[in-house]
Amino acid sequence: MDPESFRQIGHQLIDYIADYRLKVANLPVMAQAEPGAIRAQLPGTPPESPETFDAIFQDLDKVIVPGLSHWQHPNFFGYFPSNAILSSVLGDYLSTGLGVLGLSWQSSPALSELEEVTTDWMRQMVGLSENWSGVIQDTASTSTLVALMCARERTTNFSLARGGLQSEERPLIVYASTQSHSSVDKAALLAGFGRANVRLIPTDERYAIRPEALAAAIEEDIRNGLTPCAVVATVGTTATTALDPVEAIAKVARKHNLWLHVDTAMAGSAMILPECRWMWQGIEEADSLVINAHKWLGVAFDCSLYYVRDPQHLVRVMGTNPSFLQSAVDDKVKNLRDWGIPLGRRFRALKLWCLIREQGVTGLQDRLRRDMSNANWLAKQIEATPKWRILAPVSLQTLCVRHEPDGLNGPELDKHTQAWAARANASGHAYLTPATLDNQWMVRISIGAVPTEREHVAALWELLQRVVKE
Amino acid sequence: MDPESFRQIGHQLIDYIADYRLKVANLPVMAQAEPGAIRAQLPGTPPESPETFDAIFQDLDKVIVPGLSHWQHPNFFGYFPSNAILSSVLGDYLSTGLGVLGLSWQSSPALSELEEVTTDWMRQMVGLSENWSGVIQDTASTSTLVALMCARERTTNFSLARGGLQSEERPLIVYASTQSHSSVDKAALLAGFGRANVRLIPTDERYAIRPEALAAAIEEDIRNGLTPCAVVATVGTTATTALDPVEAIAKVARKHNLWLHVDTAMAGSAMILPECRWMWQGIEEADSLVINAHKWLGVAFDCSLYYVRDPQHLVRVMGTNPSFLQSAVDDKVKNLRDWGIPLGRRFRALKLWCLIREQGVTGLQDRLRRDMSNANWLAKQIEATPKWRILAPVSLQTLCVRHEPDGLNGPELDKHTQAWAARANASGHAYLTPATLDNQWMVRISIGAVPTEREHVAALWELLQRVVKE
Repeated sequence: MDPESFRQIGHQLIDYIADYRLKVANLPVMAQAEPGAIRAQLPGTPPESPETFDAIFQDLDKVIVPGLSHWQHPNFFGYFPSNAILSSVLGDYLSTGLGVLGLSWQSSPALSELEEVTTDWMRQMVGLSENWSGVIQDTASTSTLVALMCARERTTNFSLARGGLQSEERPLIVYASTQSHSSVDKAALLAGFGRANVRLIPTDERYAIRPEALAAAIEEDIRNGLTPCAVVATVGTTATTALDPVEAIAKVARKHNLWLHVDTAMAGSAMILPECRWMWQGIEEADSLVINAHKWLGVAFDCSLYYVRDPQHLVRVMGTNPSFLQSAVDDKVKNLRDWGIPLGRRFRALKLWCLIREQGVTGLQDRLRRDMSNANWLAKQIEATPKWRILAPVSLQTLCVRHEPDGLNGPELDKHTQAWAARANASGHAYLTPATLDNQWMVRISIGAVPTEREHVAALWELLQRVVKE
Repeated sequence: MDPESFRQIGHQLIDYIADYRLKVANLPVMAQAEPGAIRAQLPGTPPESPETFDAIFQDLDKVIVPGLSHWQHPNFFGYFPSNAILSSVLGDYLSTGLGVLGLSWQSSPALSELEEVTTDWMRQMVGLSENWSGVIQDTASTSTLVALMCARERTTNFSLARGGLQSEERPLIVYASTQSHSSVDKAALLAGFGRANVRLIPTDERYAIRPEALAAAIEEDIRNGLTPCAVVATVGTTATTALDPVEAIAKVARKHNLWLHVDTAMAGSAMILPECRWMWQGIEEADSLVINAHKWLGVAFDCSLYYVRDPQHLVRVMGTNPSFLQSAVDDKVKNLRDWGIPLGRRFRALKLWCLIREQGVTGLQDRLRRDMSNANWLAKQIEATPKWRILAPVSLQTLCVRHEPDGLNGPELDKHTQAWAARANASGHAYLTPATLDNQWMVRISIGAVPTEREHVAALWELLQRVVKE
């Protein structure tokens, strides 16, 4: 495709996306597709000869868009907000269009340096000290895996340069909470720790980790000749946005020389609000943390910000230096390939840069405050309504709710919960995520899609009251 | 940013990228920036209030674009081609604009199913049998890490479910070649094997792994009570595009029950040409392989295709199943979160789909043949010129060359080589990557940027003959 054809079709495409965003509110928010139905509508073999983009646009309308769940929909209350604010979308368009690649600093200096600048802007926006250095990873799953690998190598004094984890005498242990994200467990397993060496510490009535239980578990492991290595605290857990007490956990971690990684993938965005920073009190004592700017903040996926206090350690774990990547300026620059797993990197800083500049810090703050206020409003309605329960503190913008008709409990209550959630999702007017809490199903309402205003939250509440009775 | 502003600025942006692609040939191909110079031109603190996109476009022109090395430039001969063909760019624009996220099949069914369809198209295009299933990862570094983790878990019968690599008695060993990519070594270290358990097998005069040396190394390790686990073969090495003999390696791997991963990140694209498939003869015997569709083929970065023969094993290693991701159809669909490290995924299939449809298989084939013919032509010129040497077989589109004036060798020859390569790069008329081969510096000429025609290769040859004399 030559630039002039790109220009012509590109204009069509911009209109297509603008129109999509304008009309998305009228589409069913959750895809109503049957498994395999989309695949069945597409050719099983690749085309030998070129096709036109008109054919592609037709398939988008007929096959692809009807097969989407719409994350940019005002009635999207599922999982977590994954906002792709349109200024950030444009930043990503610049990145893909310029088509440059970051392998080393030299392979595109502006790519590396803008990543330094924008991750430092975010550092300031969330109130972290200058002791932190940031880099963009794809997701929190990866950031947490990197953190646990770094922890492993610190505790073993760089076993990777010797016999690896295979040469260690006493097993290393990783601690997290029963409410931590599935990616923490996955990261520990992928990093080679083994499930038998992952301790999930119980939580309190607010679903936050109990620091005294953490301390007790560590001490027991030490008594048993094991080596505590890392603890992952979560600020804003997936199920309930619970807040692990970072300060108390940091104290325990410091005492036993554990790596402290803070998974604040979801709640990290809220730290641009000074009034929220009590939620991660003690954060300066952590070794690493992750904030997914591609969630509530609004950067188009993927943009997971990983901050460390000791970048040299990170580079020692992740670094490689083959001849074809060496340059004369290597001692004066950051080579971000040594800050994570992949060698190649997109120019992802552009989308963060465009978002922050177009919204301004105050613009971002105002929207997050709006969402928290909407969550509060809804919590008040629910609390004031018989048979409805809010199951966990509403720290941010997520509500965990259950409708509990008289006499219904155990499996019958689960059946009721799953049934009304399915009815709400099938209505096309809401997308909600059911999940379990204390072994009982409940429904998460995650508020914070950019187009979601109070009226949409109010309409959701009407819908919920209807579907529980159907 | 509302959809109407997006429409307006989006049109500007499309023109900006079209114009960039039209004029890029006139820009110096390698960035001439000094370390820190770009950062110094940008504000150190984030803007409190919104800014206009006009200000962003101005900074692009003034600060960002002059700080780029231009990978889409006809005179780009560095590293490897990382083509972002404009139809694929538009596919990526659709993905970012729609702003949907793949967590589970249900979270956007079309995202998962189009990824199944397009990776299967590519499977057919490169002539792999139906025994292979594909998924899109970000880079080959990640794909290879996933492969080695899968190997580790097969050999240990899922140690991750027990004590991890920490519980294994005899160290597991990974084999690769001295010419394999730095990411192989990195993956082995990150997966916990340890450097002492990575064997780099010597290569022959064509820089291909010696299967008999591999067999000998494995047998020695077994005699020493160690456990051979995995071998990584490379089809198209980074330095010289050397071709490890997959069939012979597979025979050794099978005999000792090793996982065989084939890194064909670069050369895999060429397998869409039936006349090239002898290069990976034996590939059906591998356990996993990676093809970077974001290199020569032309998909905008990132799009690394990872194929496995046993997807159930992959899912058992990478899978998680928290309640909030469960749905009623989980037994009928592929949940691609269980096929790699990250949980969230972009709708990356769109850019692969748009590229294949807009180019057609024949269009892609024609271009790759053009590049190989250009590489051959240049090889002939160089071979026919006194003092110039081609150092390795030109299997695909990469030439490894040296200019060897009489009496110059050792460190003096290295100095000469690095000096003329630096002069070529500083001229703005070429971007070349020096690298070492047999402990001596040489210069790689990687042909295959989409706009590179014979005239550009001819001009490069003129330039090289000039700069060696300066």
